[in-house]
Amino acid sequence: MPHQLDHTLALLERTPGALDELLRGLPAAWTDATESSDSWSPREIVAHLAHADRTDWMPRARHLLEFGETQPFPPFDRLGQRQAMEGKSLAQILDGFAAVRATSLDDLGALHLGPADLDRRGAHPALGSVTLSQLLATWAAHDLTHLHQISRVMAHQYRDAVGPWSQFLGVMHCGGHGG
Amino acid sequence: MPHQLDHTLALLERTPGALDELLRGLPAAWTDATESSDSWSPREIVAHLAHADRTDWMPRARHLLEFGETQPFPPFDRLGQRQAMEGKSLAQILDGFAAVRATSLDDLGALHLGPADLDRRGAHPALGSVTLSQLLATWAAHDLTHLHQISRVMAHQYRDAVGPWSQFLGVMHCGGHGG
Repeated sequence: MPHQLDHTLALLERTPGALDELLRGLPAAWTDATESSDSWSPREIVAHLAHADRTDWMPRARHLLEFGETQPFPPFDRLGQRQAMEGKSLAQILDGFAAVRATSLDDLGALHLGPADLDRRGAHPALGSVTLSQLLATWAAHDLTHLHQISRVMAHQYRDAVGPWSQFLGVMHCGGHGG
Repeated sequence: MPHQLDHTLALLERTPGALDELLRGLPAAWTDATESSDSWSPREIVAHLAHADRTDWMPRARHLLEFGETQPFPPFDRLGQRQAMEGKSLAQILDGFAAVRATSLDDLGALHLGPADLDRRGAHPALGSVTLSQLLATWAAHDLTHLHQISRVMAHQYRDAVGPWSQFLGVMHCGGHGG
């Protein structure tokens, strides 16, 4: 479907609550588990989403509106959450995500973007020319790729426990690594 | 990790709330969208989860405890939700899922299962001998495989809207079909 900003907003405002309902109070055997030694736990994924809201999505939207394609976006530190989550409980990380998401959406609303703004272009350091519309759609899809990852990381913990049922569970056979 | 019933219960009790937060009130462009003409929408997936609680998980657990391996489980109608969801709004389907899940978990608690019960065996019509532990772990993993599917189906709607970012989004490249 073509990108509609109100659809993107409707999803962005729901993700923190959905992750809160799924993860708050769950045993650490679920929330701190990974797929391999260098992969992310659900706890780290929530911290990553919060970190991306703080340093990536709205900062890049503002950068695009200010500089167009004349200056590429500053690079995004994909591991920046490691420092940000240090010493924090999952409950604090979830609270932080909800708070920064609410602020981000307030800031986005304050830009009063119209259809012509969505066609404005910026320069991604690796991908080249991108539109504001693509940036905002990717923000929502980034929530979904990490919800997808969280469900896969959690299911992975039960790959032995389900016994022969593993073959019927698509999540056990997903090739979409990373997010 | 080895199967722990309390971990399974902790997840099972959270899934309806997580899906409610994610999906209630979202535009139909998200909730009624599919990946292809014969694939499921998020709306149908929630109806499927409710249908499986009604007709599959606890009925099979009771069947296993009553008949052991002497009688295979009755077959499960994977498309049974089509009839069950007819004429219902997504809000009604979400309410129905929350209600049947609460009842299922009450029923499970009333069985007062001990470790020895979890090792008891039943006969799956296709998979052969399975334990009650595997059945209950699969109930939780089934929630996760469909949360995984919902996030993938929704992300699929933005495969064009994200432009060149598609290559960075693992959810756009998932090979785990079906659930």
